[in-house]
Amino acid sequence: MIEFASKAVESGITAAKGFRAAGVSCGIKAKGLDFALIASDTPASAAAVFTTNRAQAAPVIVSRKNLSSARGRAVAIAVNSGCANACTGPEGLQHAETTAAQTAAALGCTPEEVLVASTGVIGVKLDMTKIARGIASARAALSPSGAADAARAIMTTDPFPKEAAAEIAARGGVFRVGGIAKGSGMIEPNMATMLGFVTTDAAVAPGLLQRALKAAVDDTFNAITVDGECSTNDCVFALANGASGVRLDDADYELLARALRAVCEPLAIGIVRGGEGATKLVTVRVTGAASNEDARRAARAIANSPLVKTAIHGGDPNWGRLVAVAGRSGSEFVLDRAAVRIGPVELFSRGVPYDDRASEAAKYLNHSDVVVEIDLGTGGSGASQMWTCDLSAEYVRINAEYRT
Amino acid sequence: MIEFASKAVESGITAAKGFRAAGVSCGIKAKGLDFALIASDTPASAAAVFTTNRAQAAPVIVSRKNLSSARGRAVAIAVNSGCANACTGPEGLQHAETTAAQTAAALGCTPEEVLVASTGVIGVKLDMTKIARGIASARAALSPSGAADAARAIMTTDPFPKEAAAEIAARGGVFRVGGIAKGSGMIEPNMATMLGFVTTDAAVAPGLLQRALKAAVDDTFNAITVDGECSTNDCVFALANGASGVRLDDADYELLARALRAVCEPLAIGIVRGGEGATKLVTVRVTGAASNEDARRAARAIANSPLVKTAIHGGDPNWGRLVAVAGRSGSEFVLDRAAVRIGPVELFSRGVPYDDRASEAAKYLNHSDVVVEIDLGTGGSGASQMWTCDLSAEYVRINAEYRT
Repeated sequence: MIEFASKAVESGITAAKGFRAAGVSCGIKAKGLDFALIASDTPASAAAVFTTNRAQAAPVIVSRKNLSSARGRAVAIAVNSGCANACTGPEGLQHAETTAAQTAAALGCTPEEVLVASTGVIGVKLDMTKIARGIASARAALSPSGAADAARAIMTTDPFPKEAAAEIAARGGVFRVGGIAKGSGMIEPNMATMLGFVTTDAAVAPGLLQRALKAAVDDTFNAITVDGECSTNDCVFALANGASGVRLDDADYELLARALRAVCEPLAIGIVRGGEGATKLVTVRVTGAASNEDARRAARAIANSPLVKTAIHGGDPNWGRLVAVAGRSGSEFVLDRAAVRIGPVELFSRGVPYDDRASEAAKYLNHSDVVVEIDLGTGGSGASQMWTCDLSAEYVRINAEYRT
Repeated sequence: MIEFASKAVESGITAAKGFRAAGVSCGIKAKGLDFALIASDTPASAAAVFTTNRAQAAPVIVSRKNLSSARGRAVAIAVNSGCANACTGPEGLQHAETTAAQTAAALGCTPEEVLVASTGVIGVKLDMTKIARGIASARAALSPSGAADAARAIMTTDPFPKEAAAEIAARGGVFRVGGIAKGSGMIEPNMATMLGFVTTDAAVAPGLLQRALKAAVDDTFNAITVDGECSTNDCVFALANGASGVRLDDADYELLARALRAVCEPLAIGIVRGGEGATKLVTVRVTGAASNEDARRAARAIANSPLVKTAIHGGDPNWGRLVAVAGRSGSEFVLDRAAVRIGPVELFSRGVPYDDRASEAAKYLNHSDVVVEIDLGTGGSGASQMWTCDLSAEYVRINAEYRT
C-alpha cells in the first residue's frame, strides 16, 4: 500500500503550474464557446488514449501521428466543438493537419507538438476560416485563469462543464493534476464522444505517463456508459511539464496512476451525471465473478441495459432485470447462488426472492445517486464497478432532435 | 435453387391438420386471456430452440428435459402469461413439472410429452390453483378454431397478437405450417422474452425438424431486436404430426427450412412491429462485410443502438451514427470505401458525405417501414439483415412503469 494524500483544488486544467488555457467563440456552433486551447509554457511529456472505433475521425488520426512523430512530447491541445471532422475524407485530414500547423505557428512550436480534437456532428467539414479565427482569439486569451472557459468550449449537449484538480504529496514535494472533460451521449467504455484532457506539473517520462494514463482511464473514463455507444472522436490526452520540480520515475508508477485517477474519476462521473436525459447516477457493482473480466462484462451489460435503466428511472426495484441481463452477458453465472441488492436492500439471494422488501428498495431508488449490486454466485473473487445513468424520455427527445 | 411455392392461409397455429388450440383466462393476469394450450391429435415430432441466458427459467429447464426424455416427441404445449416462473428456485421447478403433469393427465399423454412455457414478471411464483383451472378450461375449449384465442393468451405487453400460416407444395402433396408468437420488450437475438410456437402437418423426423427449426430461427426470431435484451424464458417450439400425409426426409431439408421460415418471418417481424413503444419497423442491411458473421455483428450493433433508433424515431437521416456504430461493432470496417443508404438515398459513399440529399432521406423516413443499409467497405461478400424498431419516449414510459 503506497501512501497517497490528495486534496481537491480549484481551477481545473490550469491547476498545474505552467499551463494556460482559453475558451473562445469562433462561430462553429450557432452560439457559445466552441474553441479551446490548452498550452504548456514548456514542451511537456504527452500521452493519449484513443477511441477503438474503426471509423476514426481525422483529428484522432492526426493526433496519433503527431504524438508518435514528436516521440511523446507536446506543447498544446487544440479542440473545437460543434463539428466532429469525422467521415470527412482526405479533406478532413488536411483540416486537422492545418489546425495543428496554425496552432503551432501561433505558439512557436512544431505542428507535431500539437494534439487536436473535435466533437460534434459527424460528416460535416470544418470551416477553416472559423478555426483560424478561433486559434488567433484563443492564443490571445491564453491565461492561467482560462480553465473554466476551456471547459465550456469543449461542450456539445453537456448540461454543465466538467473540471477537477488535485494536489498530491510525493517524495520530492507536492505536484498537481488538473483536467476537463466533455461527453454526454455516445458514452461507453473504450472511449465515446468523450474528450478528457489532463495536465500535471510533475516531471514524468512519456512512457511512464502513457502507462499510468492507460490504467487511470480503464478505471474511470472506460468504466462509464450513458448509452453503450463509442464514438469516432474520443480521446484522453495527458501532458506533464515538470513545472512543480517534482520528478516521478518508475518507482512512482502507482502514485502517478492514483493521482491521475483522482482527477479522471470525478470527470468521468461528471460525464455520467450530465448524461443525456440523466436524472440519476447509478453505480453498478458486480462481485462473486469468476474473473475481473467476467465481472466487467456483466457490469457493462447491466449498465447498458435499457430495461435496467428504465426501471431505475421509474424507481422500480425490478431485480429480475439485473438477473436476466447478468445471465445473458456471457459471464459465468450461477442462479442458485446469486444475489441482488438495490442499495442496502437484498431482494434476491441464493435463488430466493424477497419481494416483501420491494417497497423499502423503491424508497431507496428515490435518491439521485444509487448503487445496484449483483453477486454472480460463482464463488470467485472477480469484481468490477461501472457508472451509468437512468434512461429517460428526455434521452429520446434529445437524440431524436439533435441534428434536425 | 429448390422450387418453393407457399401461400399464406388463415387460422395460425391450427392451420396444420390435426392440431387444436385454446386460450382461456385463469386469473394470473388481472384481466384477459392468460393460459394457452396447443395439442396435436397424435404424438408429434418436436423440436425447440431455447434462450441462451444462463439464468434459465423453470419452464425452460423442464421443457428441455422433457424433450430429451421423450426423444423428440410431444403432444402438447402449455403456456401461461402474466408470470415468468423465473428465479423461483426449486419450488418454481416443481410448479413447471406439475403444469406438465396435469396437462398430460388432461390429455392422456405422458408428462414428458408436454412442453411448457411462461412469460411475465420474473421472481414471482406461479399460482398452481389458477394453473389447474387454466388447464381444465383450456382442455375443454380445445378446438381447431382456437388459434386466435391461443395467440392472445400468450401476450404480455404486446399491442396485438401475432399469427401466421402457410401452405407449401411438396413432392407428395401439400402440407401446412402455422404459428403464433409473442414478445414485445426484452427482444434480442438468441431469444428474448419471446415465445414462438410452430406446427406442421408434414411428417418429419425429430432430428430433421430440429435442424430446420434452428436454421429458420437464426434468420427470423434471432434476427430481430427491440432493446438488445435476451430473457430467461425464451423459446421456440415446433411440432410436426404428419396429418397431411406428406413425409419430408433429409432430401427435403431446404424445403422444410423455407417452410418454417415462411411462418417464422412474419411472426418475428410482427414482434418488432409491436415492440414496446415502436412506431417504425426498421430493416437493417449490412453488405460488403469480410464475413457473414461480421455482417451480423455490425447489423446487430446498429439494430440495438439507441442513437440510431432515436434518430430514426425523429426522422433524422443521421448516417454518421450508422458509421460510428459499425466502426465500434468489432467487425472489419474500411471507412474510405464504406457507404450508407437510407432507403434509396445514398448519403455517404467512399468517404464522402452527400448532405444535400438529407432532405430527401428525411422525407423517406416518414414511412412506417424503413430500410437502412451500410456497406462496410471491406470488399467482402458477407451480408446480413436484421429487423428492429425505433426507440421512442413511449418505450421508456412502458418500462419505467411495467411492474410498479
